[in-house]
Amino acid sequence: PANKKLLILPGDGIGPEVMREVRRVIDWMSRRRAISFDMEEGLVGGAAIEAEGSPCPDATVEKAMAADAVLFGSVGGPRWDSLPFDKRPELGILRLRKDLGLFANLRPALVLDALVDASSLKADIVRGVDIMVVRESTGGVYFGEPRGVEILPDGKRRGFDTDVYHEDEIARVARVAFDLARKRRRKVTSVEKANVMQSGRLWRAVVGEIHKAEYADVELENMYADNCAMQLCSRPKQFDVILGNNLFGDVLSDLAAALTGSLGMLPSATLGAVDPVTGKRHALYEPIHGSAPDIAGKGIANPLAQILSFAMLLRWSFALDEDATLLETAVAKVLAGGLRTADIMQQGMARVGTSVMGEAVVREL
Amino acid sequence: PANKKLLILPGDGIGPEVMREVRRVIDWMSRRRAISFDMEEGLVGGAAIEAEGSPCPDATVEKAMAADAVLFGSVGGPRWDSLPFDKRPELGILRLRKDLGLFANLRPALVLDALVDASSLKADIVRGVDIMVVRESTGGVYFGEPRGVEILPDGKRRGFDTDVYHEDEIARVARVAFDLARKRRRKVTSVEKANVMQSGRLWRAVVGEIHKAEYADVELENMYADNCAMQLCSRPKQFDVILGNNLFGDVLSDLAAALTGSLGMLPSATLGAVDPVTGKRHALYEPIHGSAPDIAGKGIANPLAQILSFAMLLRWSFALDEDATLLETAVAKVLAGGLRTADIMQQGMARVGTSVMGEAVVREL
Ligand SMILES: CC(C)[C@H](C(=O)O)[C@@H](O)C(=O)O
Ligand SMILES: CC(C)[C@H](C(=O)O)[C@@H](O)C(=O)O
Repeated sequence: PANKKLLILPGDGIGPEVMREVRRVIDWMSRRRAISFDMEEGLVGGAAIEAEGSPCPDATVEKAMAADAVLFGSVGGPRWDSLPFDKRPELGILRLRKDLGLFANLRPALVLDALVDASSLKADIVRGVDIMVVRESTGGVYFGEPRGVEILPDGKRRGFDTDVYHEDEIARVARVAFDLARKRRRKVTSVEKANVMQSGRLWRAVVGEIHKAEYADVELENMYADNCAMQLCSRPKQFDVILGNNLFGDVLSDLAAALTGSLGMLPSATLGAVDPVTGKRHALYEPIHGSAPDIAGKGIANPLAQILSFAMLLRWSFALDEDATLLETAVAKVLAGGLRTADIMQQGMARVGTSVMGEAVVREL
Repeated sequence: PANKKLLILPGDGIGPEVMREVRRVIDWMSRRRAISFDMEEGLVGGAAIEAEGSPCPDATVEKAMAADAVLFGSVGGPRWDSLPFDKRPELGILRLRKDLGLFANLRPALVLDALVDASSLKADIVRGVDIMVVRESTGGVYFGEPRGVEILPDGKRRGFDTDVYHEDEIARVARVAFDLARKRRRKVTSVEKANVMQSGRLWRAVVGEIHKAEYADVELENMYADNCAMQLCSRPKQFDVILGNNLFGDVLSDLAAALTGSLGMLPSATLGAVDPVTGKRHALYEPIHGSAPDIAGKGIANPLAQILSFAMLLRWSFALDEDATLLETAVAKVLAGGLRTADIMQQGMARVGTSVMGEAVVREL
């Protein structure tokens, strides 16, 4: 079969250094598992602003369109904080999501047994938590028009955004959530503010229709976003799959990630639609954590979220389930062996830097 | 001086039964502290739908306009869940906020020493947490126009809402937050998604301007809403006052409340503008918790949030700081004495129902 085309976008901050550890894993995979990738690298975020004057140059979008999968690092940093709205590093990831049609952002929040104590929540509350947040990622208030800051006749300003969903946008991401739930514990919690928002009212209606017509074997629960935030904090184990729009999905997936206490461990995938002709889908994989400019370049960042993002890539884009599991198991074993980067350090464990952690994963493989 | 005019709106679910306990407190106050109230009662929520066909009858709004302060219970329940959008019990509270101009919703999240163990978070993470969320409550996506669910020419549906803020709306609620911070630990964390929303960009700009011009003695920190959710869960003690728009304020205040582990204890206040002529401001006080239909009528609901809402009322609407403190101290003592309702029950404590708890507070007074 043709080589798998992989685009690597390290981005800013700790992005490049954690990506280096993934390259070791890729090297190992090509040597030992005979999986070969055609790899390209591209510019995104602040790095692209410096080199090309744009957070997401056309060349990057073209490479991404041509690739089978994109492995993304992270973008942003204080250096670009004062740039105008339409020039900021964040546009790098937003444009990729939009132009590649990556509408389903999958964000697992998993508490590994070895890391139960890293959580700010009590051990008995978080042990065994295994949540998948499915966040719509090309619609809603992130892209809705009209939007802007206008100057009124009296010189005062008025800022406005439009939170808008077409029923098909809701239906397709709902299907992703229900399909996932079928492979898990068969429960979807769909989150909105149907009590105050019209788009939320439509969201609840459409999810209910899809459920009734196609997924009656999965349990569907509707929950207001404020209540969901509460419940995540107090009883996270009740959740299996959480489905939300772009904005609620953003906030609630970060909350779900935070309660695991090990942000530096969490990968994510963002998937497009399956092409009915080729059977392919665009997909981008990235850690949940940001560019962490405060620790960038110090060699102490945790590379595991980036490595686990690569494992998700193997599974979702190339159906290499066995290799993905191999990699995930290697990570779990390294942790069980007591190695910890600073962010997940616990008493009695051995504190290591980025590259020692990366090497340990390869050795375990 | 003229009697203080108080409007009581018990609403639905546990609202009426916890309100009964406040009445005991009011009786005691009028007898022993010579504070006399002109009390009226009104209909709101499901109760008003049953009696008058509307979740917020004009008569209720008129009484609220005439009152010096409104003590609100809670609204909603499964009985009214299938009503159309514009007839739901929730409209009771939304219309009151809007018609009375109650733009500043104050939601304290306080962890009492006696209740540290009720939290799902580790004791050392939550001990001493004392956060005040200031939520804008008459603007944003809750009321923005245009909004609706439209049918497109091909018969498909599209739901949309407008999240909109005028700079004056942002400025006035920001001032409330900064003023509060001055009486506390002098730090305001202003929350938005300025990286993706235009109204968020204006929010950040205006809060920054007000800070620079009028409150340079207070520390201002800007934080994205997703990050704030994370930080609340992992390091809540970093916060003093959190300022957010209607939607982020809704979700983050519920999260802040949840992490205390004692929802049944938390009051809130919603304040209007000070009338420049009379010096008066409309104000409504309500517990954070909802109508809890599952336990309504069983006599086990925790009346303390409603009682503490009344304490907030004494302080904010009538400047009766001494009496408010007296009441708050009585509550703390009752808890220290070991009484607990079911929601905050802990080992070794005495479990009591709604009225025993109410009586205990009065006895302590
Ligand atoms: C960087 C930012 C635009 C982005 C978002 O809000 O979607 C981030 O928070 C995320 O969740 O991927
Ligand atoms: C009842 C509902 C409309 C309300 C809101 O979303 O504002 C509630 O959640 C609240 O926070 O007071």
